[in-house]
Amino acid sequence: MKRAQVFRLSMAHPGDLSALEKLIVGGTVRASDVVAIIGKTEGNGGVNDFTRGYFTQTLMALLSVHLGKPASQLIKEIPCVLSGGTEGVMSPHYSVFCISDDPAATRQYPKALAIGTAFAPVAVENVGRRAHVESVATAVRQAIDNAGIEKLEDVHFVQVKCPCVTVARASAAIAAGKPPRTTDPNRSMAFARAAGAFGVALALDEIKPDRFNDDSLLADFTIQSPRASISSGVEVESNEVIVLGNSPAWGGDLRIAHASMSDALDIGGVFDVLADLGIKANPQVPVRDTERIACVLVKCEPDRRGNIRGHRHTMLDDTDINAQRHIRGAVAGLVAGVVGDGRIFVSGGAEHQGPDGGGLIAVIASQRGGH
Amino acid sequence: MKRAQVFRLSMAHPGDLSALEKLIVGGTVRASDVVAIIGKTEGNGGVNDFTRGYFTQTLMALLSVHLGKPASQLIKEIPCVLSGGTEGVMSPHYSVFCISDDPAATRQYPKALAIGTAFAPVAVENVGRRAHVESVATAVRQAIDNAGIEKLEDVHFVQVKCPCVTVARASAAIAAGKPPRTTDPNRSMAFARAAGAFGVALALDEIKPDRFNDDSLLADFTIQSPRASISSGVEVESNEVIVLGNSPAWGGDLRIAHASMSDALDIGGVFDVLADLGIKANPQVPVRDTERIACVLVKCEPDRRGNIRGHRHTMLDDTDINAQRHIRGAVAGLVAGVVGDGRIFVSGGAEHQGPDGGGLIAVIASQRGGH
Amino acid sequence: MKRAQVFRLSMAHPGDLSALEKLIVGGTVRASDVVAIIGKTEGNGGVNDFTRGYFTQTLMALLSVHLGKPASQLIKEIPCVLSGGTEGVMSPHYSVFCISDDPAATRQYPKALAIGTAFAPVAVENVGRRAHVESVATAVRQAIDNAGIEKLEDVHFVQVKCPCVTVARASAAIAAGKPPRTTDPNRSMAFARAAGAFGVALALDEIKPDRFNDDSLLADFTIQSPRASISSGVEVESNEVIVLGNSPAWGGDLRIAHASMSDALDIGGVFDVLADLGIKANPQVPVRDTERIACVLVKCEPDRRGNIRGHRHTMLDDTDINAQRHIRGAVAGLVAGVVGDGRIFVSGGAEHQGPDGGGLIAVIASQRGGH
Amino acid sequence: MKRAQVFRLSMAHPGDLSALEKLIVGGTVRASDVVAIIGKTEGNGGVNDFTRGYFTQTLMALLSVHLGKPASQLIKEIPCVLSGGTEGVMSPHYSVFCISDDPAATRQYPKALAIGTAFAPVAVENVGRRAHVESVATAVRQAIDNAGIEKLEDVHFVQVKCPCVTVARASAAIAAGKPPRTTDPNRSMAFARAAGAFGVALALDEIKPDRFNDDSLLADFTIQSPRASISSGVEVESNEVIVLGNSPAWGGDLRIAHASMSDALDIGGVFDVLADLGIKANPQVPVRDTERIACVLVKCEPDRRGNIRGHRHTMLDDTDINAQRHIRGAVAGLVAGVVGDGRIFVSGGAEHQGPDGGGLIAVIASQRGGH
Repeated sequence: MKRAQVFRLSMAHPGDLSALEKLIVGGTVRASDVVAIIGKTEGNGGVNDFTRGYFTQTLMALLSVHLGKPASQLIKEIPCVLSGGTEGVMSPHYSVFCISDDPAATRQYPKALAIGTAFAPVAVENVGRRAHVESVATAVRQAIDNAGIEKLEDVHFVQVKCPCVTVARASAAIAAGKPPRTTDPNRSMAFARAAGAFGVALALDEIKPDRFNDDSLLADFTIQSPRASISSGVEVESNEVIVLGNSPAWGGDLRIAHASMSDALDIGGVFDVLADLGIKANPQVPVRDTERIACVLVKCEPDRRGNIRGHRHTMLDDTDINAQRHIRGAVAGLVAGVVGDGRIFVSGGAEHQGPDGGGLIAVIASQRGGH
Repeated sequence: MKRAQVFRLSMAHPGDLSALEKLIVGGTVRASDVVAIIGKTEGNGGVNDFTRGYFTQTLMALLSVHLGKPASQLIKEIPCVLSGGTEGVMSPHYSVFCISDDPAATRQYPKALAIGTAFAPVAVENVGRRAHVESVATAVRQAIDNAGIEKLEDVHFVQVKCPCVTVARASAAIAAGKPPRTTDPNRSMAFARAAGAFGVALALDEIKPDRFNDDSLLADFTIQSPRASISSGVEVESNEVIVLGNSPAWGGDLRIAHASMSDALDIGGVFDVLADLGIKANPQVPVRDTERIACVLVKCEPDRRGNIRGHRHTMLDDTDINAQRHIRGAVAGLVAGVVGDGRIFVSGGAEHQGPDGGGLIAVIASQRGGH
Repeated sequence: MKRAQVFRLSMAHPGDLSALEKLIVGGTVRASDVVAIIGKTEGNGGVNDFTRGYFTQTLMALLSVHLGKPASQLIKEIPCVLSGGTEGVMSPHYSVFCISDDPAATRQYPKALAIGTAFAPVAVENVGRRAHVESVATAVRQAIDNAGIEKLEDVHFVQVKCPCVTVARASAAIAAGKPPRTTDPNRSMAFARAAGAFGVALALDEIKPDRFNDDSLLADFTIQSPRASISSGVEVESNEVIVLGNSPAWGGDLRIAHASMSDALDIGGVFDVLADLGIKANPQVPVRDTERIACVLVKCEPDRRGNIRGHRHTMLDDTDINAQRHIRGAVAGLVAGVVGDGRIFVSGGAEHQGPDGGGLIAVIASQRGGH
Repeated sequence: MKRAQVFRLSMAHPGDLSALEKLIVGGTVRASDVVAIIGKTEGNGGVNDFTRGYFTQTLMALLSVHLGKPASQLIKEIPCVLSGGTEGVMSPHYSVFCISDDPAATRQYPKALAIGTAFAPVAVENVGRRAHVESVATAVRQAIDNAGIEKLEDVHFVQVKCPCVTVARASAAIAAGKPPRTTDPNRSMAFARAAGAFGVALALDEIKPDRFNDDSLLADFTIQSPRASISSGVEVESNEVIVLGNSPAWGGDLRIAHASMSDALDIGGVFDVLADLGIKANPQVPVRDTERIACVLVKCEPDRRGNIRGHRHTMLDDTDINAQRHIRGAVAGLVAGVVGDGRIFVSGGAEHQGPDGGGLIAVIASQRGGH
């Protein structure tokens, strides 16, 4: 029986994988069990954020040593989804997702955390277009299969990391007669995230294939997936997919739940997802329950209409601080205050991921000691 | 009998006082009743934040028209305390504090909000030194008298805006043979805030005069005032003091309460101060109680030890975003999430103001409809 | 005979007009002679740069006192073109353009500086569209007439300040059923600058009316005006136009010249414009010639192809510092190094203004003492 | 006879060493000849700039493959001095310094470029103190010996990269009872650079050992070395020293020269150093001479008195952009405009390195084809 484990580890800087190395060397983690990484590094989260590439290079070098495979191959097998930017109270950390196969294991809980992954390439000229959406959808379906999740309703969180267009890539594409959708790197990241969200929605049957075209991306915000979490970054050239859900076919004590956040002030959504896992915040999660929490995953977005509950915000008009850095810092302040821990994954750029102007939260917690 | 009122108003930009103008023209606010302003403008909160000066100039010009006094005189009579930086979900707004004297009024509640103000000049070379501390203490005592608050325990919030040193002022002072404590503008703002906090603590009998010397500022963090809120800015040359407390001698329906925040994740402090005012967040303040809240005032600080509850934060090591902008965004995200409103005053630079690495929160609410 | 004068004045902060006040009070400048201001304030130059509004409010209040006209009227008569952002070696300053009429004056030089101004409103929904281009062209023609410049070749510099779209204005326009060309404030500033440049080119007969349509803006960079300098900002709602040229009908000793800069490294363009005015940099302008220089006006642009002379630059991929702040700082470093003075007007956003990836430089100098 | 070569290479991102790899694989560079690297990466140059660590990790991995030595050893043998921040027109690049020993070589020019390197550890608690100064001086003397330069006047450029204090390191040192000079990371970088400059001045006999004490660092700016170039960064724990000079004992066609820059506008210093190498800028270096230039190394500093030639600058008062980023962008704009190439090393933080408020420039050029 397969069993999923999640190790949430801290880093001293983006090239510091010593915590994972210690677990591998000490025998707690088997290098070959590592199937995915989701983490927050301390960059700016934008096009020129190289903390993600630095971390990934270091990770793959470490795994390469222990697995005896070249890093260049591992990078195509193990999704490493990093969101740059630990604004405010967030703490740089990474969650290592492992799958072990224990023939002797028996089921302890009705359902337990199940994990599946997949990769799909996308060309620069397709970024943010229908071809991109479809490549994501295919990869998500493949990851669901791979996880052995039978019901789509048991999927709670689909993380996709999409490539984006840099000035250099755009120039090359134009020279090759294949102009990208936009040459503005920050805009291309937004289109890539939109395509990822549409792809997840398509794979999860949340929208129909004829419901959208290229123009719907970043325009028709009624289209959304409340379970999609999309990042985009300069360091990847393929879509990387991680599906997280619950399944009766898996052992282990972890379970995942998710909730929508209707806007950036929706503390209720945070309480809801915790309640779903049997955790009562009062108003903060008590210490013994904090220890049950293995991973907190949040997507959020500065409301593009320029106000929140009728009051003007200034995130979109700020030339000094990128709007995504603003919203990550604010929502992380809220969520970390409820869970009492800064090691949370809060990622901006939630276009089409959850309600417009809001986002989503997923939490993985142990069922052991629950109540 | 005197009665305090607080009008919380939004602005479209730092030079937009149209909301106040409308209230004055419409007769809701009498210009001569305005005694103080506390607000958040959308600058960066640093030395080069001119949104505060812009707002102040516009405000004084408006009051000048209605009061028939020159703006240059009003600016020495009406404290206008602005904190720059509406990071994340914060909404630019200002609270207008008014005192009206109604001989026919009778007491409705055992105690009600009382307001006192005072001004005290400080020379550039004294900024962040004992002479600065003492000038603040004297002004605070004067403002308490002025408010008619008899017990020091009834003081809940003392706002002081202190001058700081700019590169230009520092050069002038050095040329005059009176070197300032530091020539680094950001550092001088920190020293000024420390002096302000020490001054409040001295005036409120929280510390004894022989307990500290110049070296204690920004060094001995066991010295703190849980009721001090200090700002510093390039646009003022005097300490400006606003004392807020409760008094049986005042009419009106407002009351103020305060609580400490032990660190940036202390959501409990937020719930406590609300509970003190009879407001139950569940987890968010219900809409009818949101309407009772007149003003939310928060001070916070990036933990200088570099971690929060054992987990590293990156605010102090960030060359791109000033640490105060980080912490304001995070704590505002938390507090706004609980009260359901982005119109909150969250100000960074809480050195010696509440617990080290934490800060304080004060809320003014109507007692009408309370439970 | 009309005579143009230019006073280049420093400011201690964006609300400091004391240098102009002193000149007016001392009789050097007659308030009624002031026809335009061009200056650099120390904001960020973006949508949330309020230093421009602050300066303008202070200027108009000052002139209002001396002219006995309301500021609200003056603001519609005197173009006040401010570019925010004094990156690097630039020094905050403003040039006051004055016209005096001296019946007794006689011509000293074949041609002398001539100034004309005009205003033209533009609706939010028209920003960055053909209607915007045409409103600019009409205003430029009117300003040329107003300056009495007969030959278009004698026009050397046309400054236009255009309104842009903020999140708030965009929402209002959408609500009114008149969607703006873009809701992204930074993008709208770019479209506004493009429209301004097209308008100048049209007025100066550099392009024909059928040569472009809405889609040409920010797309067809073969269309450009080597004499257009366009700014855009949140604080104006009309196009404000200042035409600077030379004319035999004007007295005084000032003359203007201009040159294109082919890219951000084109030091040759700087030497050329100086040579045109009889000033030889060797490699820096000698002190006695520095004193002849009355005003230096530069437009520049980060090369959108991502490289300069074959080497990659990083301005467009930087999430921390806006690309316009990057290029202003670099080009100002070059120009200030040649002229030996940081009081230069260097403004970013040179789309369609001079060669693609480059820009333009205009200098006004006294002909007295020339060689 | 030993021969020095310098290869100036571009990178697509901080982890891109493909240009060097190509030269090694193609046989142009022998991996064992590489003795030092000086480069500019596209980070922010501050404490949280990880582009330097990323580049270094990638470089050492590459050399490790070709040299068959572990990267952990190479990092202690090959100084890799990176300055983060390619503001404005600067292009990310790195110069690879190689020494080859050719028994058959004969001297072509009276003197040619000579290179020496050395390493010296420094503890966190010593950073910015006399012990730090002395450790640097010892290492510089060792590198001069190592280069075989006999006369101190033949040393033209001494690059030192010093460790600094991060919040984490400071906390560890304090816990160990060894408090660092400062716990403010940016301030510790400044102290480290000062110690490096003092160490170079000491080694080059520019100052006497009794001329200074701990308090002189960052205070007595009459102490300076016109040949010191000091960087500081979070990624090194030893002082890394590279000495560049000319020597009759070396073959090859390269030669180095240096000049002081009296302030940030000193274009004359740039022309001087070029003239010293027989290169005449007119006003830009002609293309055939551009090709002779192998490396341009510049240090600069925002004038701490707040003005340049009597005009206020705003670099030190800017909360949004670090002052070092400002000055690098400006000075790079000037130097790149003269040499016609953005691949220049411009590093901020020039405290005690050249004239106060100014800095230094060194250029390495081929003597072949000179005139």
